[in-house]
Amino acid sequence: MIAWRLLIHCTDQPGLVHQVTGLLFKRGCNVIVNHEFADADAGRFFMRTEFTGDLDPGDLVEDCRSVLPGEAVIRLTRPSRARLVVLVSREHHCLADLLVRHEFGELPAEVVGVIGNHAELGSLTGRFGVPFQHVSHDGLSREEHERRLLERIRALAPDYLVLAKYMRVLSPEFVAQFAGRMINIHHSFLPAFVGSRPYHQAFARGVKVIGATAHFVTDELDAGPIIVQELLPVDHTHSPQDLARSGRDVERLALAKALRMVLEDRVFLNGNRTVIFD
Amino acid sequence: MIAWRLLIHCTDQPGLVHQVTGLLFKRGCNVIVNHEFADADAGRFFMRTEFTGDLDPGDLVEDCRSVLPGEAVIRLTRPSRARLVVLVSREHHCLADLLVRHEFGELPAEVVGVIGNHAELGSLTGRFGVPFQHVSHDGLSREEHERRLLERIRALAPDYLVLAKYMRVLSPEFVAQFAGRMINIHHSFLPAFVGSRPYHQAFARGVKVIGATAHFVTDELDAGPIIVQELLPVDHTHSPQDLARSGRDVERLALAKALRMVLEDRVFLNGNRTVIFD
Amino acid sequence: MIAWRLLIHCTDQPGLVHQVTGLLFKRGCNVIVNHEFADADAGRFFMRTEFTGDLDPGDLVEDCRSVLPGEAVIRLTRPSRARLVVLVSREHHCLADLLVRHEFGELPAEVVGVIGNHAELGSLTGRFGVPFQHVSHDGLSREEHERRLLERIRALAPDYLVLAKYMRVLSPEFVAQFAGRMINIHHSFLPAFVGSRPYHQAFARGVKVIGATAHFVTDELDAGPIIVQELLPVDHTHSPQDLARSGRDVERLALAKALRMVLEDRVFLNGNRTVIFD
Amino acid sequence: MIAWRLLIHCTDQPGLVHQVTGLLFKRGCNVIVNHEFADADAGRFFMRTEFTGDLDPGDLVEDCRSVLPGEAVIRLTRPSRARLVVLVSREHHCLADLLVRHEFGELPAEVVGVIGNHAELGSLTGRFGVPFQHVSHDGLSREEHERRLLERIRALAPDYLVLAKYMRVLSPEFVAQFAGRMINIHHSFLPAFVGSRPYHQAFARGVKVIGATAHFVTDELDAGPIIVQELLPVDHTHSPQDLARSGRDVERLALAKALRMVLEDRVFLNGNRTVIFD
Repeated sequence: MIAWRLLIHCTDQPGLVHQVTGLLFKRGCNVIVNHEFADADAGRFFMRTEFTGDLDPGDLVEDCRSVLPGEAVIRLTRPSRARLVVLVSREHHCLADLLVRHEFGELPAEVVGVIGNHAELGSLTGRFGVPFQHVSHDGLSREEHERRLLERIRALAPDYLVLAKYMRVLSPEFVAQFAGRMINIHHSFLPAFVGSRPYHQAFARGVKVIGATAHFVTDELDAGPIIVQELLPVDHTHSPQDLARSGRDVERLALAKALRMVLEDRVFLNGNRTVIFD
Repeated sequence: MIAWRLLIHCTDQPGLVHQVTGLLFKRGCNVIVNHEFADADAGRFFMRTEFTGDLDPGDLVEDCRSVLPGEAVIRLTRPSRARLVVLVSREHHCLADLLVRHEFGELPAEVVGVIGNHAELGSLTGRFGVPFQHVSHDGLSREEHERRLLERIRALAPDYLVLAKYMRVLSPEFVAQFAGRMINIHHSFLPAFVGSRPYHQAFARGVKVIGATAHFVTDELDAGPIIVQELLPVDHTHSPQDLARSGRDVERLALAKALRMVLEDRVFLNGNRTVIFD
Repeated sequence: MIAWRLLIHCTDQPGLVHQVTGLLFKRGCNVIVNHEFADADAGRFFMRTEFTGDLDPGDLVEDCRSVLPGEAVIRLTRPSRARLVVLVSREHHCLADLLVRHEFGELPAEVVGVIGNHAELGSLTGRFGVPFQHVSHDGLSREEHERRLLERIRALAPDYLVLAKYMRVLSPEFVAQFAGRMINIHHSFLPAFVGSRPYHQAFARGVKVIGATAHFVTDELDAGPIIVQELLPVDHTHSPQDLARSGRDVERLALAKALRMVLEDRVFLNGNRTVIFD
Repeated sequence: MIAWRLLIHCTDQPGLVHQVTGLLFKRGCNVIVNHEFADADAGRFFMRTEFTGDLDPGDLVEDCRSVLPGEAVIRLTRPSRARLVVLVSREHHCLADLLVRHEFGELPAEVVGVIGNHAELGSLTGRFGVPFQHVSHDGLSREEHERRLLERIRALAPDYLVLAKYMRVLSPEFVAQFAGRMINIHHSFLPAFVGSRPYHQAFARGVKVIGATAHFVTDELDAGPIIVQELLPVDHTHSPQDLARSGRDVERLALAKALRMVLEDRVFLNGNRTVIFD
């Protein structure tokens, strides 16, 4: 029996669960786990079903389409290894964490390439048998740099793009290429401390907790839909450098957790919010 | 339209969700939220559906019974105010928390009575307009004391019995009367530190985190199904008294959270474990 | 032997700990616990010593002054019950929490009065034997309302003023009267979601964690020195109302914890940050 | 100016802080941070001072000895790189975490060798330029296996021995060689679930939170002084395998945090408890 995941997102209306589960029941599929959520205010319906069964995937999607509203987004996936490309700058901790998880089978994906605007992390990447490309931004306009990045990324045909402490702002044109497929780790508990040097901002404000936020990237800097937020208590003895050091631990945890959610098809976009079936 | 909750617990088999949602769809009911969980190892199926609809409750239960396995436990409830009886000894914090929540409509239940084996908490209870009864254990055998307790409790006809820092061990015979309906707050992160003086045990062991556990009461002391666990970091500067003081905050939080889960019909027993749809 | 707390805040310079502990040693005092912190960037020194001893408090402060820099702030206190006045509006949860802790000796202070700009919480307050005054703002200018508040507050001679969900903005003139002595509970994880309706803001932003912040009040709205921040995970199923309900639990925890810190003389102001010896 | 750490542990008596800080003041040393703790019940005094100064370390220790009780433990260290030997079996996550931190200068120590009773982790270790030795236990008595281990360990002259998921029980004789210098990561929130298969135990008990405990190793299995405990919420949908997977994240966090505390000389043993100045 083959394992499948059926993901549906559409306008809410009565009977959706009954109808969709009926299509699976009719085919003798065995539902393992089922999640639904209706956003009453927005009138949106979200459903995720894990099941096993022998079927023609096109047929099932066709059948779903016949019972669901016209604008329904329907995905039928199999727990295979999505292709990831990771963008980095100089900081190692999130990349190292992903490479270790990848090496030992904890990341349900294939890291098909790492691209840095600096060369530093090439050695680390190489030791895990993953190709590293250095695409420097030196002396280039943002447009030209992004053009070169895009070329390399497209050649790798990723399902998802991961910004693992990639420290340059990307243009709306670049971002638009990967809507809902680009995940960033921001080093603060958003929406507090958007922008640069968040640990210095946090220190100056005297907060007692710091955080990290993994989110989808949208046009607006640091304002995309939040996937995971992790936190850590701090106190008056911590310098901005201490905050940054502590922050590295929550950053990589938040990013790893967000990636697992996304790769297991547990995350739906709902406007600027996320629905997560975990 | 009337709001209902349908709760089902039975042997797992294919098509259950489809069949049950079909019964609701047929009646024109509007599902608000739906949770299912199949425990694959135990072969058990759990389902909780909130919906609105005009129906004859007996009819729906009948229909459910016709499509579900024979041993299915089926409950159809309405979000009404369950009746609670609270048992206390001398410590005030959990009782005060419940009385305040009750007074201000945060506890979806009616506290119909408080019974103490000591008299101290009568004044507090009275100020919130709830009847207090003192049933002293002085000079009584456990059997006789429990007999008197039972008499008072039965007269109050509670749906649930809450042990809010009730410090006497209850006999298996007493416990059996309230299987799945008696909730206790234990002052430790069970299964660590079962038995008495858990904060002294925690201090002696030098733990760095303390906790509280809200659980259903069963025959075996401190071994019943866990509903909620809350935690708090501590350090070497804390005495057992400090631990106990900090513990009071997590105790009342854990108990309040567990009660809300139970009163909203979100908790299923699954052997000695719980399934919680929150 | 009498218990004392010596609190010192001054420019940092070598030998401060040695000199101050020498003054205590000379008098045969017994140090129970000692905390120091030097803020290297700001060049500030903070010290808190709990000790027992028979001494003339004026003499010790005099001696401290002779060995400390001219601008040193020196306080010698005894663990007595500070006088608290609580300002409220309509929400009960923080006030109820303080009243219960007060009643059962968990709050090391005397709540000498509660003042509400609405009348609702008078009944609750009265049940705990604390005087309640209703000072309505209806039809009054802010100046006039604050003048009336100040009159009542001054008559109660509080050491600290607690804003327990007091929902009106106070003028800089009012705030200036209680610099370092007025504690507010803000219903968000500051600096995220300053201003009004933070739970609606948090919902709209789709955050995965909400929080509460207890802080000293300064001229700038929601920008005063932070004392305590408490947090709670949330998810896509929570409405703004759910967030607010969950928030009530962290709000009262954060406020109670902050008050205990302040009342035990553990909190120093350091510019717009706090130094907390806990 | 050279940075030093002075660590003192002795019977408590009046004037200790004054006397020790006097010795530093006399030499013109500049105290950066100072921590003291007196365990009133046990009558023990703990002090840790970070300072800068040009001095003869032997002289200062001598002077300290002259003012401190005879049994005082006095250590004067410099923030250098302690030598670590890591013992592993088959699980990679804690080792990988240490190797990454080591490579990027986040671990204030030198990992001088990794020894496995299985060969699997040799490849990972080698990629980080750290020598790996395979000392199989196959066909050997425990005594003989430990003799071989000891031989290799001694040749590496470690300051600390780290059990990073080393899955064999060590004899009291072995443990005695590294009293206060051997740190283990246990995959549960001790004292809950001592012994083997803690995640299966946790699943069976139906707990709602799992944890990991970093502790010093003593004769008694899983009963040594606790350094760090980290926790994670879980629910009814988690299998023992899910718990183990989640557990890996808290295990490596707890171990890394404990190691940093130990390597920065922040941890004192106090009977079977620890005093930690963080």
